[in-house]
Amino acid sequence: MKILVPATTANLGPGFDCLGLSIGLFNSTIIEKSNFFSISIYGEGSESLSLKKNNVFVSIFNEVYQRLSGKKDTFRFIFENKIPLSRGLGSSSSVIVGAIGAAFEMTGFKVEKQKILNEALKYENHPDNIAPATLGGFVVSVVENENVFSIKKSIDESLSAVVVIPNVPMSTNQSRAALPINLSLKECVFNLSHSSFLTACFLEKKYDLLTIASKDLIHQTRRMKNLPELFEVQKCALENKALMSTLSGSGTSFFNLVYKEDAKYLKQQLEQKFKDFKILSLEFDNKGFEIC
Amino acid sequence: MKILVPATTANLGPGFDCLGLSIGLFNSTIIEKSNFFSISIYGEGSESLSLKKNNVFVSIFNEVYQRLSGKKDTFRFIFENKIPLSRGLGSSSSVIVGAIGAAFEMTGFKVEKQKILNEALKYENHPDNIAPATLGGFVVSVVENENVFSIKKSIDESLSAVVVIPNVPMSTNQSRAALPINLSLKECVFNLSHSSFLTACFLEKKYDLLTIASKDLIHQTRRMKNLPELFEVQKCALENKALMSTLSGSGTSFFNLVYKEDAKYLKQQLEQKFKDFKILSLEFDNKGFEIC
Repeated sequence: MKILVPATTANLGPGFDCLGLSIGLFNSTIIEKSNFFSISIYGEGSESLSLKKNNVFVSIFNEVYQRLSGKKDTFRFIFENKIPLSRGLGSSSSVIVGAIGAAFEMTGFKVEKQKILNEALKYENHPDNIAPATLGGFVVSVVENENVFSIKKSIDESLSAVVVIPNVPMSTNQSRAALPINLSLKECVFNLSHSSFLTACFLEKKYDLLTIASKDLIHQTRRMKNLPELFEVQKCALENKALMSTLSGSGTSFFNLVYKEDAKYLKQQLEQKFKDFKILSLEFDNKGFEIC
Repeated sequence: MKILVPATTANLGPGFDCLGLSIGLFNSTIIEKSNFFSISIYGEGSESLSLKKNNVFVSIFNEVYQRLSGKKDTFRFIFENKIPLSRGLGSSSSVIVGAIGAAFEMTGFKVEKQKILNEALKYENHPDNIAPATLGGFVVSVVENENVFSIKKSIDESLSAVVVIPNVPMSTNQSRAALPINLSLKECVFNLSHSSFLTACFLEKKYDLLTIASKDLIHQTRRMKNLPELFEVQKCALENKALMSTLSGSGTSFFNLVYKEDAKYLKQQLEQKFKDFKILSLEFDNKGFEIC
């Protein structure tokens, strides 16, 4: 069995911990029943990820598989990872969603995306990456009584993502430490109005309003201070046809949304200025977790 | 010339200062050029509103009319007001929007709703009531450089509003004094995620999710303490088929949204329990400011 899980970008500026979307850059995993346990990892993380049973994907897969089936079967895993690690592009969520979805499929349970999502919430307690990784598209979510409630909208084919990936990682914990404990009512109202308006822009396909909608007062500036070059990245993107330019999750990557015909131009402009950073021009993904 | 402006309910729970919708309860005004200035007021405010040139509607109308036309003509005004005053149902916004829209029409300028809205923002510095009063329907707004940006969605005919109007007023200033200066990040994220999700519920017509979406941690509890019976109103509504039950603007009214077939039942339940309060079952309005 082969599964695919997309990269995701969360927050989208103001939508802290609740908005996210799915990008066409995939981790693929082949899982087969086998007499012997084995792991092969190609691509991202091939030099750093564990090849033992404590590998995060494997341990979540085994946990869910054993709980659902009551059996302790052994498997071989072949990972082909395209999502960079610790760059705010949802690599953890892709592992969690992939392992859970694969376990459902392998035990013969019906793979319902809502069940994957509620299960995934046990491993990552905010839904902004796991929801688009599971469902694809643009997704807004809330959590109530340990259940994720999500509304999804496909992203138009006229749009592309241009993702800037710095050569330094950022752990979510490190990035969360940059956050304030308290906010002013004004900052709060700014973000809640912009996050709501941004949601409406995606749902009503009013992409020209994204530049205004994607402003944030809560987390971006505070986190970007860890890597001040990101201020230049954002400025450059917005001056060169990006409709929005936001810190991807907790960073360090930057997510830029453009009309497809402008993607090549924006990529070139960014490549000229930020030679140490990797710049990818990508499609959006509207499917989410998939069994091939 | 006759104009109509609807009542509005703002905030809708989590969407503080940015979400609002338009209710089919109207202030109507007849304005005619005349050799003598005169005012007649029928309905709400007939005993309290000024009959002189300092009447708020008249002074805004005159200000805008004189600015646009360069003339100091005199008019007679006949007001028939259905929107109660100081109850959180947008009576001030209806006056502002109506006066500006009427001035545009009377000077022969093309009445563009976006222009009315930007002008209205000079008189009320948050867009949550003026936007639905102008546009009708459900509206999410942000303000940027003194311009209002709004996205509107019509509300389905299958829905009704049941509005509870207490017998005591609440000034916006008094109600704003109940608000905190600072909020925790957790409260802020709760509201921004719920406000975004609520926006998606209205835009995608997923009304069954409104109960979850309409929760708020910023303002309702703090304001409702001024009139503790409102906690009972909300409880009663949610137990009797309301899909959402939220403080209307800064209060004192409560806004309940139900499926049309449940409106009569909910109204009866509320009337039995809250005999001193006025309970109205109303349609939604999807047109906003209108010249008849």
